Amino acid sequence: MSEAKFTVESLEQRLAAGPFNRWLGFKVLKIGDGELELKATWREDWVVNPDRRYTHGGILAAIIDVAADYAIAIELGRPVPTIDIRVDFHKAAMPGDVIAKAKVVRMGSQYATAEAYVYDKDGALVASGRGTYYTAPPPAAKPKNL
Amino acid sequence: MSEAKFTVESLEQRLAAGPFNRWLGFKVLKIGDGELELKATWREDWVVNPDRRYTHGGILAAIIDVAADYAIAIELGRPVPTIDIRVDFHKAAMPGDVIAKAKVVRMGSQYATAEAYVYDKDGALVASGRGTYYTAPPPAAKPKNL
Amino acid sequence: MSEAKFTVESLEQRLAAGPFNRWLGFKVLKIGDGELELKATWREDWVVNPDRRYTHGGILAAIIDVAADYAIAIELGRPVPTIDIRVDFHKAAMPGDVIAKAKVVRMGSQYATAEAYVYDKDGALVASGRGTYYTAPPPAAKPKNL
Amino acid sequence: MSEAKFTVESLEQRLAAGPFNRWLGFKVLKIGDGELELKATWREDWVVNPDRRYTHGGILAAIIDVAADYAIAIELGRPVPTIDIRVDFHKAAMPGDVIAKAKVVRMGSQYATAEAYVYDKDGALVASGRGTYYTAPPPAAKPKNL
Repeated sequence: MSEAKFTVESLEQRLAAGPFNRWLGFKVLKIGDGELELKATWREDWVVNPDRRYTHGGILAAIIDVAADYAIAIELGRPVPTIDIRVDFHKAAMPGDVIAKAKVVRMGSQYATAEAYVYDKDGALVASGRGTYYTAPPPAAKPKNL
Repeated sequence: MSEAKFTVESLEQRLAAGPFNRWLGFKVLKIGDGELELKATWREDWVVNPDRRYTHGGILAAIIDVAADYAIAIELGRPVPTIDIRVDFHKAAMPGDVIAKAKVVRMGSQYATAEAYVYDKDGALVASGRGTYYTAPPPAAKPKNL
Repeated sequence: MSEAKFTVESLEQRLAAGPFNRWLGFKVLKIGDGELELKATWREDWVVNPDRRYTHGGILAAIIDVAADYAIAIELGRPVPTIDIRVDFHKAAMPGDVIAKAKVVRMGSQYATAEAYVYDKDGALVASGRGTYYTAPPPAAKPKNL
Repeated sequence: MSEAKFTVESLEQRLAAGPFNRWLGFKVLKIGDGELELKATWREDWVVNPDRRYTHGGILAAIIDVAADYAIAIELGRPVPTIDIRVDFHKAAMPGDVIAKAKVVRMGSQYATAEAYVYDKDGALVASGRGTYYTAPPPAAKPKNL
């Protein structure tokens, strides 16, 4: 495992630069041992079912995507485009902040696989998933003289 | 294909009952021929990258989940719990409303598969995916006397 | 849609070059209109359940992977590495040959998405799925002098 | 974690009852700590590419499906129908037996999620994935008099 390219502060700042990530209220809890831990801050807008009031699956999918992506970012120094994701929903997530724990399954020079698990405020697993991410250098990063 | 259990108006109303679906600004464009067509209304909060300004993958995943779920709902008369989803990202979705077209791949009495395609305002495919949904009757729907 | 880079005969020959594809007994039924149609030839070894005798899901997953891959191959002129696949199982596939229909969802210069549907001998949908494929030129294809 | 419903011997026997699982040459290496470890025995028929001779992705997908399914089986006492799977391919698997390590991500009374990792003979991760399995009691298991 290479050294982390972000600190808790610099990663949180990077996340806060994106409007939707800011809207999800991400806090970085831990970077280390090849694992990233994020908190997302609950808001009323997350609710899908007005009676039972649990969180929309799309919110959990977004959190899994971000956590897995940034687990790669702490190795690469930048977030990367998502190619595809799979998300499994395990349990209704009732109102409250959630914690995502993510790690890289396999890093590659062209694409990588990372996974994340999301827990509710009582520590119950509410969703998990994995994605394929595009890790090849972006066109802009290629040397000008080639 | 059974008859649609929702009209454009009743489905839009049902969608608007959920805070996150309301936040995504869903309009129902078409119900019929076993296909559902929804529009989601762009907002600045959708942006993931402040420079290039394209839409967060989590937003597209949420739209795919909702469209596929409601393609089932128009057959069953109610939206259903998502068991899992897969989403493929094909192209950066630039600012603007998006259109989702969804249909049921296979309806079952215990679970069903449905898919959705999302297009940007120029008609380009930006994401697509499919999910497994739990279609068994909810506990509350069971007759009281059993 | 670009012109097909394989004929029915040349694609069948290419498939037969690989031991496991040969074992699956692929016949090419149709290439055209952006869609590929393959038949896989049932054998007793496919059975998972000795009593009910339906086909192993792994066999159906392999057939979906191959059909989706070769839908890309007819555009690119070569099969490509699979990055990931998702397969949904819709119905037990009883003994008998199966037909796979595949097409490209989105072709890209780095990776592509393709999907396939598998039908039993009565035309019932037994499984379907989609995969992400690595379409960048292989290292060996790079000019030697770079 | 409930007690294992199979021993190494009884699970290996159960696996060997199915023709395709027998063809894959499964040996049970370990049951315990909520994890199942299987070995699948390489054969020439696994090869996809006659020049480079690596194993077909469909074989790895089948192994992942079986390992994840039987991780559930050791808790439930029976293998269960696969609803859907996702498989990520990390590295070409060269000729040789492979080891699969599987565990249950979340057990449920209607459906469950399980995952598996596949390693080559040098211990390198070649593929991984997860599936949703149908855990509700089969119709045949319902009491006759209801």
